[in-house]
Amino acid sequence: MSAPAPRLDDGFLAELRAIAGDRVVTNASVCERHGRDESYHPGHPPDAVVFAHSTDEVVALVRACAARKAPIIPFGVGTSLEGHVAALNGGVCLDLSQMNRILAVRPEDMDASCEAGVTRKQLNESMRDRGLFFSVDPGADATLGGMTATRASGTNAVRYGTMRENVLSLVAVLADGRVIRTSRRARKSAAGYDLTRLFVGSEGTLGVITEVTVRLSGIPEAISAAVSAFPDLAAAVNTVIATIQAGVPVARIELLDEVQMKALNRYSKLAHREAPTLFFEFHGSAKSVVEQVETVAALARDFGGADFQWAIQPEERAKLWQARHDAYYAALALRPGSRGMATDVCVPISRLAECILETRTDIDRSGLIAPIVGHVGDGNFHVVFVVDPDDQNEMRRAEEVNERMVLRAIAMDGTCTGEHGVGYGKVEFLPAEHGEALAVMRAIKRALDPDGIMNPGKILRP
Amino acid sequence: MSAPAPRLDDGFLAELRAIAGDRVVTNASVCERHGRDESYHPGHPPDAVVFAHSTDEVVALVRACAARKAPIIPFGVGTSLEGHVAALNGGVCLDLSQMNRILAVRPEDMDASCEAGVTRKQLNESMRDRGLFFSVDPGADATLGGMTATRASGTNAVRYGTMRENVLSLVAVLADGRVIRTSRRARKSAAGYDLTRLFVGSEGTLGVITEVTVRLSGIPEAISAAVSAFPDLAAAVNTVIATIQAGVPVARIELLDEVQMKALNRYSKLAHREAPTLFFEFHGSAKSVVEQVETVAALARDFGGADFQWAIQPEERAKLWQARHDAYYAALALRPGSRGMATDVCVPISRLAECILETRTDIDRSGLIAPIVGHVGDGNFHVVFVVDPDDQNEMRRAEEVNERMVLRAIAMDGTCTGEHGVGYGKVEFLPAEHGEALAVMRAIKRALDPDGIMNPGKILRP
Repeated sequence: MSAPAPRLDDGFLAELRAIAGDRVVTNASVCERHGRDESYHPGHPPDAVVFAHSTDEVVALVRACAARKAPIIPFGVGTSLEGHVAALNGGVCLDLSQMNRILAVRPEDMDASCEAGVTRKQLNESMRDRGLFFSVDPGADATLGGMTATRASGTNAVRYGTMRENVLSLVAVLADGRVIRTSRRARKSAAGYDLTRLFVGSEGTLGVITEVTVRLSGIPEAISAAVSAFPDLAAAVNTVIATIQAGVPVARIELLDEVQMKALNRYSKLAHREAPTLFFEFHGSAKSVVEQVETVAALARDFGGADFQWAIQPEERAKLWQARHDAYYAALALRPGSRGMATDVCVPISRLAECILETRTDIDRSGLIAPIVGHVGDGNFHVVFVVDPDDQNEMRRAEEVNERMVLRAIAMDGTCTGEHGVGYGKVEFLPAEHGEALAVMRAIKRALDPDGIMNPGKILRP
Repeated sequence: MSAPAPRLDDGFLAELRAIAGDRVVTNASVCERHGRDESYHPGHPPDAVVFAHSTDEVVALVRACAARKAPIIPFGVGTSLEGHVAALNGGVCLDLSQMNRILAVRPEDMDASCEAGVTRKQLNESMRDRGLFFSVDPGADATLGGMTATRASGTNAVRYGTMRENVLSLVAVLADGRVIRTSRRARKSAAGYDLTRLFVGSEGTLGVITEVTVRLSGIPEAISAAVSAFPDLAAAVNTVIATIQAGVPVARIELLDEVQMKALNRYSKLAHREAPTLFFEFHGSAKSVVEQVETVAALARDFGGADFQWAIQPEERAKLWQARHDAYYAALALRPGSRGMATDVCVPISRLAECILETRTDIDRSGLIAPIVGHVGDGNFHVVFVVDPDDQNEMRRAEEVNERMVLRAIAMDGTCTGEHGVGYGKVEFLPAEHGEALAVMRAIKRALDPDGIMNPGKILRP
């Protein structure tokens, strides 16, 4: 992995073109765009981008790359957040976004099989009238392949799980061109190592995921949303803990801190109280949703929660959640011309209030602008540093706050990333988090990709 | 792995004794007992059994074995069902049952950390008054280490998941004596390969699990059980499918076929209708449980379900479920002096009726006695062949029916085992199920255990 990658010579290019014709692109702007994700991390363009159309084609492309030990970087729509798609050593980007056929939707099994380039919204729209939905919602309209590779998560995870729980099986092309299907479609199995879970979250470093079978969920009979403001962060987080412990099957439970609420009011011309606020969503039968709302409203009141507004009608709900969905842009609008530097950690819920409060204090002390937003039911929260990327000093301070937050989370038995993944942005934190287990990850990587051609430099330092 | 194992010489024995004193046992009956599980598979005694007391001791024992390339077979309480603990090449059995300290119960995080030898009942009894329970219930009072190693499951899995979903983190001693902790305690993480899931279900072939952190669930406010008999198997299974699709969060949904119901009536002097029968359990708030029962009762009626008896009081419920719990012994009582040959498969739920019906027909045609019982919400079902183990012809016929059932399940995109695991009993079916993916499992095994000393012959043929 440390040898310099062979640049694309004419022979190699001809070989790729023999496989994928004019879907092999070396145009600088296309390469530029494919070496960069939505994060603040510097992009690294690949030497070529190939728009693959089938698993067989991926096999041929991987074999061609493997023969020259050229790096392969799988790409969906580039919405990752830790530099996952950067071609750190050049090489070939395999863009799978045109592999976007929904292969099967099986209502009776509540699952669907899709090519890796199908996006979550595409899948959901295709099922609109069938009473089913795919639950994992990371915000961006990412591809299922990308979401699988990064073990994506999002607002619904507290009830429906992350990609870890929602991928039933997948097809991957290994570094030597072999194709595996990681498991059958049965809901459970005790037949050997859990290769599905090994590939979920492997960030393209073990193979190229070309097909994914996901669980679907039934669209609930009733959905209700609610918002409540709290006197302080601790009160809000304690309400979350009490809700989870009471066994309320809440579908979403999101925390927005006072900085974020202020940003929202300004951005969306709203009049929310500028205090730590929880956004809830409840799914179930009509009766059960009412019961859930009553239980949580009572818990919120116990912790000083006010203004328990709730909304049943789709339009009202949409309006309520729009605020949450606008959070990122509202944050950026706090400072025109700025960029967002998004990061996330996840801790056991008992440590969540402490972790958020210490982080809030650290941010405030640093003089940076950075709202906190969290999928708090899972103990997961995000900080978006609203920075001027050209201000070296400011970037350094943001990175220092980020580093302290990550080490704080790890010290609390948490993780350096709950859902954004490692990419190359968090590689440095894995030794602190995993210790000797990192050597096991390395051994697995070596066993499956001895030449280190699969998305080198991600998860594991070369 | 193919070289004959070194028998226990005096030097080796002395080394083991230097580590674990008189907890190193070579007594024939102890060895015999440790080489055999609850299955029909022939036992293979290890050369010695060591009752380990700590992770550090396991490290020293593994190092001593590794230096001599002696096989290591981890052992909990021996309730596995596919010969998982058989010392096929001799070697040292590491009995972890005395590592039975509950290290922490954390109600606020709803998790608990335990040494591998803690049993599920021990953990549940320790939390009796805390409103929490550990949900995975494979029937036997297995150890958490053993349940983790075999990816155990059981009646509650349809609602609460299997060990795959309920293990948050674990500590394992690798084949070279290194100790890893597979992840932190956060509920979700995107920080690298999912080693937790890799070790869950690895059956002692990648390392010795010495500590497990599991999720806990809140004891529901209300629990209700119900039983309903159906005109035929298809009607019962279709009720299950409709229940799952309706999104009823049923906690248990068990099918007993007419052979099993007849066995139960005879064994427990009950008067159930001798027809395919579903046993349900509903968990939730008092209101939600009533609503669930009403929904499912209506669905059952649609499919001709009769006698929808339901029970709320703990004693009534216990009585109802006792029948389900007695299923195995009731089956054996059909034929005094017989042994049970238990096997399981799991298919996508759309194929469940077909798979069960074809299997029932095949059993009946074979002239064997074999009730079918299933955790049908997951598409998982069991057959217990009630056999005379000394009758070679009968055993062969049972094995043939089993083989046809497994291949049928695989052809329906199912798995050769939903929850019993591979052990050495189902090793032969993995190529049909996994194809090329089996080579990936082998590569991982080689990477972590190059000398093949960790429970050789299980999951992967040497």
